[in-house]
Amino acid sequence: MRYDGQMIDTSRTRRAVTLDEATAILARTPATLDALLRGLPDGWIHAHEGGETWSPFDVIGHLIHGEQTDWVPRAKIILEHGEARPFDKFNRLAQFAESAGRTLPELLDEFSALRRKSLDELASLHLTDAALDKRGRHPELGVVTLRQLLSTWVAHDLDHVVQISRVLARQYTDEVGPWRAYLRVISGTQG
Amino acid sequence: MRYDGQMIDTSRTRRAVTLDEATAILARTPATLDALLRGLPDGWIHAHEGGETWSPFDVIGHLIHGEQTDWVPRAKIILEHGEARPFDKFNRLAQFAESAGRTLPELLDEFSALRRKSLDELASLHLTDAALDKRGRHPELGVVTLRQLLSTWVAHDLDHVVQISRVLARQYTDEVGPWRAYLRVISGTQG
Repeated sequence: MRYDGQMIDTSRTRRAVTLDEATAILARTPATLDALLRGLPDGWIHAHEGGETWSPFDVIGHLIHGEQTDWVPRAKIILEHGEARPFDKFNRLAQFAESAGRTLPELLDEFSALRRKSLDELASLHLTDAALDKRGRHPELGVVTLRQLLSTWVAHDLDHVVQISRVLARQYTDEVGPWRAYLRVISGTQG
Repeated sequence: MRYDGQMIDTSRTRRAVTLDEATAILARTPATLDALLRGLPDGWIHAHEGGETWSPFDVIGHLIHGEQTDWVPRAKIILEHGEARPFDKFNRLAQFAESAGRTLPELLDEFSALRRKSLDELASLHLTDAALDKRGRHPELGVVTLRQLLSTWVAHDLDHVVQISRVLARQYTDEVGPWRAYLRVISGTQG
């Protein structure tokens, strides 16, 4: 595309959300996290970045809570009520009670099953391009579209893959020595 | 641990590298990337962040080149030559020629096979804790230890999982609308 005489190639840096491309990512997240985390020693699973930050174990619980209360439930609220009924607030800390006493393999299995169910429900809504323009009301962000909700679901999955990988990598912050300069995940150099 | 009267819990934020814990991550990277990428539409596979940045396809080629020329080869140079022989320089752009004309499934298969071979070779070195203290010479960073090389291998894998996930997520930078404020992977808020 050409703006003001300058060539800007956006063809590989931005995509318009489509149901097919979005669900291609959403369907892969459980297997990705399973491959990364199942069977890892506990020290990795419960690692975090200090203070109130989350471990890989905490993140899987958060993703489970999202399947139960966030993505498809909010899509249905948009389709049934539009802007008239704001979404329920999402509890970002639900996993600390809900995951207590459970094992990581249990949580991975549950996330995988819930995600499959979510994608089945999403498919059953037969969303058209026009439906993706429908508007709902976020309790804090205000008016949002179903298209924005769907793309946020995808980006949110990937954000947590980033987070888990970062938490794990940073465990070796001291161990990598001078290589720290080359590792953006550890140096924190802006991506 | 207590420093200057302040409690700092480092038990979940830093780990000392061990061969078992490091290889637990290294062994999982090919399956993680396979689960995330295999079968995705080409638009995702060749997405990047603009300019000279890398796509998921480029990153897998880079990881292949690392198996061939970086990690185990450098470990052997340390064990055989110590600081006397600096490592060969790593070619960060090798994948642009080497991956040309190939498909992502081929690259994923090759990375997986090479990683298995690397881990077999690593195991055959029977590295002790004392061996991990052995020193070599990086052409730019100077003296490094085998322990630092091993932990960097792990962090480097995870850094590229972060990168691939970030590249994918940022394709929806415009699509997520007001949710951008909540998505660190898109807003670029420091992790």
